[in-house]
Amino acid sequence: MASRVPELHAVLLVGGRGERFWPLSTPEKPKQFLRIFSDKTMVEETVERISSLIQGKNIHYVLPPHLADLLRKTLKGIKKGNLIIEPEARNTAPAIALAARALRDKPEAIMAVLPADHLIKPEKTFLADLKAAAILAQEGYLVTFGIPPDRPETGYGYIEVNRNKPLGKRGFKVIRFREKPDRKTAARYVKSGNFLWNSGMFIWRVGSIIDAFSRHHPGIYEALLAPGSGTLTRKTYSKLEKISIDYAVMEKASNAAVVPASFSWDDVGSWTALERHLKSSLDNNVNIGKLIYRDSKGCIAVAEDGQIALFGVRDLVVVKTKDTVLVCAKERTAEIKKLLSRLDP
Amino acid sequence: MASRVPELHAVLLVGGRGERFWPLSTPEKPKQFLRIFSDKTMVEETVERISSLIQGKNIHYVLPPHLADLLRKTLKGIKKGNLIIEPEARNTAPAIALAARALRDKPEAIMAVLPADHLIKPEKTFLADLKAAAILAQEGYLVTFGIPPDRPETGYGYIEVNRNKPLGKRGFKVIRFREKPDRKTAARYVKSGNFLWNSGMFIWRVGSIIDAFSRHHPGIYEALLAPGSGTLTRKTYSKLEKISIDYAVMEKASNAAVVPASFSWDDVGSWTALERHLKSSLDNNVNIGKLIYRDSKGCIAVAEDGQIALFGVRDLVVVKTKDTVLVCAKERTAEIKKLLSRLDP
Repeated sequence: MASRVPELHAVLLVGGRGERFWPLSTPEKPKQFLRIFSDKTMVEETVERISSLIQGKNIHYVLPPHLADLLRKTLKGIKKGNLIIEPEARNTAPAIALAARALRDKPEAIMAVLPADHLIKPEKTFLADLKAAAILAQEGYLVTFGIPPDRPETGYGYIEVNRNKPLGKRGFKVIRFREKPDRKTAARYVKSGNFLWNSGMFIWRVGSIIDAFSRHHPGIYEALLAPGSGTLTRKTYSKLEKISIDYAVMEKASNAAVVPASFSWDDVGSWTALERHLKSSLDNNVNIGKLIYRDSKGCIAVAEDGQIALFGVRDLVVVKTKDTVLVCAKERTAEIKKLLSRLDP
Repeated sequence: MASRVPELHAVLLVGGRGERFWPLSTPEKPKQFLRIFSDKTMVEETVERISSLIQGKNIHYVLPPHLADLLRKTLKGIKKGNLIIEPEARNTAPAIALAARALRDKPEAIMAVLPADHLIKPEKTFLADLKAAAILAQEGYLVTFGIPPDRPETGYGYIEVNRNKPLGKRGFKVIRFREKPDRKTAARYVKSGNFLWNSGMFIWRVGSIIDAFSRHHPGIYEALLAPGSGTLTRKTYSKLEKISIDYAVMEKASNAAVVPASFSWDDVGSWTALERHLKSSLDNNVNIGKLIYRDSKGCIAVAEDGQIALFGVRDLVVVKTKDTVLVCAKERTAEIKKLLSRLDP
C-alpha cells in the first residue's frame, strides 16, 4: 500500500456521435454539450461535481479533434495540456489507454474515468463513493461503480458481485461482467440482488490499468503504453482494435472490484430518460419548452425554440429544433441511429 | 329573358379563420394565401382560372379589413373599388349580400360567388360549367354547382336533385338541401345517385339574389339591399344574423337549380385532403418539403422549412413551420380548432 496520499486525477470521456438525442444533439454537439436538465451543459455539471475533490490541473479530457474548440469555449480556462485528443473514435479501451499514457510517469496516481454525459446526484454522496473507490484502487483493484438496478433494463451491461467477498467498507469482488441481457434474464438479475448495472465509470491506479493492458490486451499496450512505445500518430491509433474497456480488460481481470453506488445515476441514454427526471402533466406528458396539447397522453415534447402542439396522439417523442422535427414512437427511441443512416451525409 | 348578353361578374370570398391548415395557415394568412399544390397561392389560381371569361374589373373580393393589404400584395393591380370589406365575419349570407349591394345598379348582371380556396381543374371544363350555370341564372334560377360524390363524406352538405326535371342542357331542379349527414345517411345518398355535394359556389342574376333576400331574409335585405338602405356601418353589419347563404336563402328558394360539376373539385378542408392530391410513397406517406422516415406509414408531412423525420409512427399529420410543429392524429384533423382554443390569444 502507498505510504502517502496519492494524487487523484479525473479522465473525462467527452466523445460521442450525438445520435441518441438527435436532432438536439449532433456530431458537432453531442449530448454532453446540451443543457437538458439545467442551464449548464452536462460536461460543466460533471466538472463541477468533482471540483471540490480534484483540482482543475488534474482533470483531463479525452475527445476527438473537432470538439476541442467547443469544449474550451464551454469550460473556460482549460489548459491545452489537459486535452487528450483521440485521433479517431475507436471505442473506450484505446481512449482510456491514451489517458493512461498521458499519466504514465505517475503510476501511483489514482485515475477516475468518468463519462461527461451522465446525470448524477447528489454531489456529496458521489464524492463519498468516489473516495471509497479510490481506497480500493490504491490497493490495486480495478474498480467500477455498480448501479443498483430499479428496473429490468436491457440496455445496460450487468456486473455480478460476490456479496460474500466484501472489499473494504463499501466494495465487493466482481464475479463476472454480463453483456446486455434479454428482458427475462434482466428480470432475474434484478430479482437476485447480486447484479448491478455497469455504469461505465472506473477508478484505478495508473500503474494498475497499464499492467492490466499489458496482460489482457497486448495490442493496445504495445502501441501506446509499453516503455518503448513511440510517438502517437493517427496511423498507429487507427490500427488499434475498436473495443470497449469492458471487453478488453475488465472482463478478463482477476482484480476487478465494484462499489455499489449510493448516488442516483442515469446515463440519459435516450429521450425516454426525460420521463424519469421531468415532472409530468396529469396526462403523463413531459416537456421542455412550450407545449400545447389536447387528447394526448404519454408524450415527451422538447422544443428548442418555438412550440409543439399535439392533438389526439400518444406515446410519442416529438423534438423540434429550428431546422428539424423528429416524431418517434417512444418504444423506438433507442434505435434512432437506424433513422439517421437515412440522412444525407 | 334579357335581350343582350349580360355582364359576368365574379365575387370571390376571401375570408377565413386560418384554422384548418394551422399552423401553416393563420388568421393573418388563411388557406387561400398558401402555396400548397403549386407555386401560386390558391387565390391566384382562382383568379387565373376565370380570367379568360371574366375581366379583372369585374372580379370583386369580399374580405375582412386585415387581409386587404395581403390580397393587394398577392394579386398585383387590384383596384381599391374591387375590394368589398366585411366589417366583421358574419358568415356567407351577409357577405354575399354586401357583394349584391355593390352590384345593385346592375340587376341583369350575372354574379358568380366563388370561394378562393378550392382546388378545381381543369380550367376549361370549369369554364364550360360556369357558362351553363350562367345561362340558367339568366333565366332567373339561383344556381349551385353540385359535386358528384365519390365517397360518403360527412363533412359536406348535400343537394337532392330531381333527375326528372332537367333544366337547360346541364342543370336540374333542386328538391332540397340536406345538412351534413351521418355516415350511414351519407352512404345512402351516394348510392342513390340523386345527391350532390354542395360546393358553396353560386351563380345568379344580381336582381334574383336581391329578390331572394327580400323574400327569405328580410333582416339582411332591409339593412343592406332595400332601396332606402343607408350607409354601411360596422354597427349595422354587426347586428346582422350570422347565417350561411344556404340557410338564409337557398333552402327556402323555389327557384334553386343545380349544375352537376364536370370539373374535379376539392375544398381542401383539412390536412387529410393532401392525400388525395399528392403522390404517396410505397408506405403511403405523402409530403411537402423534406421528409425522412423509417417504419412509418400513412403519414402526411409538411415542412415549410427544414425537415421532418418520422420513426415508428403511423397515420399522423406532422406540420412544421419555423416556429411551430403540429403532430395530430389523422382522424382528428377536422377538429384542429379545438386545439387552437388552447393557444395563447
